[in-house]
Amino acid sequence: MVQGSKFGVHRVIAPKGALPQNCDKLDNNMDVLYDNEILIDVQSLNIDSASFHQIKESCGADEEKMKARMFEIVEMQGKHRNPDTGSGGMLLGKVEKIGKDLEGKIDLKVGDKIATLVSLSLTPLRIDKIHKLNMNIDRADITGKAILFESGIYSKIPEDFSEAVALAALDVAGAPAQTAKLVKPGQKVLILGATGKSGMMCAYEARKRAGPTGLILGNARNEDRAKYMMEYGFCHKAVIANAKSPIDIYEKTLEATGGEEVDIVINCLNVPDCEMSCILPCKDDGIVYFFSMATSFTKAALGAEGVGKDVNMIIGNGYCKDHAEITLEILRESPILRKMFEEKYV
Amino acid sequence: MVQGSKFGVHRVIAPKGALPQNCDKLDNNMDVLYDNEILIDVQSLNIDSASFHQIKESCGADEEKMKARMFEIVEMQGKHRNPDTGSGGMLLGKVEKIGKDLEGKIDLKVGDKIATLVSLSLTPLRIDKIHKLNMNIDRADITGKAILFESGIYSKIPEDFSEAVALAALDVAGAPAQTAKLVKPGQKVLILGATGKSGMMCAYEARKRAGPTGLILGNARNEDRAKYMMEYGFCHKAVIANAKSPIDIYEKTLEATGGEEVDIVINCLNVPDCEMSCILPCKDDGIVYFFSMATSFTKAALGAEGVGKDVNMIIGNGYCKDHAEITLEILRESPILRKMFEEKYV
Repeated sequence: MVQGSKFGVHRVIAPKGALPQNCDKLDNNMDVLYDNEILIDVQSLNIDSASFHQIKESCGADEEKMKARMFEIVEMQGKHRNPDTGSGGMLLGKVEKIGKDLEGKIDLKVGDKIATLVSLSLTPLRIDKIHKLNMNIDRADITGKAILFESGIYSKIPEDFSEAVALAALDVAGAPAQTAKLVKPGQKVLILGATGKSGMMCAYEARKRAGPTGLILGNARNEDRAKYMMEYGFCHKAVIANAKSPIDIYEKTLEATGGEEVDIVINCLNVPDCEMSCILPCKDDGIVYFFSMATSFTKAALGAEGVGKDVNMIIGNGYCKDHAEITLEILRESPILRKMFEEKYV
Repeated sequence: MVQGSKFGVHRVIAPKGALPQNCDKLDNNMDVLYDNEILIDVQSLNIDSASFHQIKESCGADEEKMKARMFEIVEMQGKHRNPDTGSGGMLLGKVEKIGKDLEGKIDLKVGDKIATLVSLSLTPLRIDKIHKLNMNIDRADITGKAILFESGIYSKIPEDFSEAVALAALDVAGAPAQTAKLVKPGQKVLILGATGKSGMMCAYEARKRAGPTGLILGNARNEDRAKYMMEYGFCHKAVIANAKSPIDIYEKTLEATGGEEVDIVINCLNVPDCEMSCILPCKDDGIVYFFSMATSFTKAALGAEGVGKDVNMIIGNGYCKDHAEITLEILRESPILRKMFEEKYV
């Protein structure tokens, strides 16, 4: 039992001096627990949507190949950071052991069910077996172990939620909590990826914050998806267009608003090359909030400059204060959203 | 002579429907000028610092190899977008022809000297000859032609500046103009890459905005660079550390502030893997402004989450309203800065 760094630097094998997230190799030996670490008996991994999508595509949706790829990633790096997307995901498990420096100082005890709210891209992980891939919800049920560092954040699974629903919601907790901070009364908001889970939660929260004088637009790729989205009642109007066609998104958005650009664009997609579809419909001095892990920094920075748009582009931080509480409260507030999560994830 | 799209979509060869910035191949045939285009007789290219650095590294600093690589990039794409960094730069040239839809509607006439303020990553370009690579200032003097689209922004070279100085300053115009918007009186600001030209301009502007109760910290990689930086007098203190060592940057910053995290971190570096060095020293609810084109979106997004930091991370937009005017005005205000630019770039 030895003292480790708050940020987990003691587990970094290479390169030396890096932090766990951007290192290439983490020590995932679970036989040694440092005094400020928490050992977790892992039950499932919620793979980040962009990452799961990439693994699925590259393996032709063959489940056995996908499992092999997941083992390979962890074998290579000691963590589940997809080398192609750079992203991770999160996990659900039971507290197995608490390092002695943390014992009594945190609100956890051995046996508690928790979800880690730090990315798998920096979490030491060992996978012993992958029991099942839940293809439509990007979840892998496994046997394995993981380590939570002292600076790592987590949430206990609340008693009024099933594990699967809590995990699915907490996975995207940053997005609706940021939406709550950003959207002001009367604003026009466009949400890309509005038919997915984070998009739905953002649409719900945006509508609440924008209030009766606001306008929430949800992008859907076709009539069917638009109908599905509109039935939830969070968006006022659908913008039906391919999110990779910026000109089309721009024109359809202006049609929906009566010619005005929107105040805020929120990107909850999991596919690349949608930067310009976010930038074009946003008004000068407006906000583009990129929650999609498939966003390219340079495409956004140079793209806005290229079309002379003075928009504030924000990198979606997976964490913001009280994000777990805000997100779970949304599901408590909205029976419709909760039902959707329960149908999809249980 | 035919009518083209405002955004230049008519020049996109592949993939269809993309905008010029993220397309793979642009039509750089300069024999046809669309009615809403401007043809420029190019004199020099200011290659984006991250891009120039990458080309230099990959060619072992061999000038002939670097020239060949530049020709190859333009041959491949019809524009100078470095495939490895995704970034471009800007150019200086003389207006050769103005499409008839724009004639009389803009403040340009044939023969005017202009700098384009949109990235080379979306500018149709033909290079006929590279006369000289100015290795220390990332500039290539060439003979060639380029096209400015209708939505493209530009600045006439002001009469009170030499071309080289104006070009060098306008190249980083987004950074000091954004700094002017972000920094408030009394704030503590850390600038990474503070010994470079954009870093210097940001430090100058940050000090002005933060006022007498503010604290401007500049990162330098060693004692010599720190001495050089401190002589300019824009930073109050130097933080001497390797910008790729987040823990070191964090500790040295706290030493400099007396234990407090800073309000704003501005990244003006041109090297990758510095995301965490920006995030760690920033206080909760503070702002991290990434102007470096070598920034990774996922490393920033997941990195902040990984250490539980609720910081607002902004993608440095190369454009913001009046950025050219703000930036040139800084050089008029500060004889020290202007002298530095004149010594370095003339």
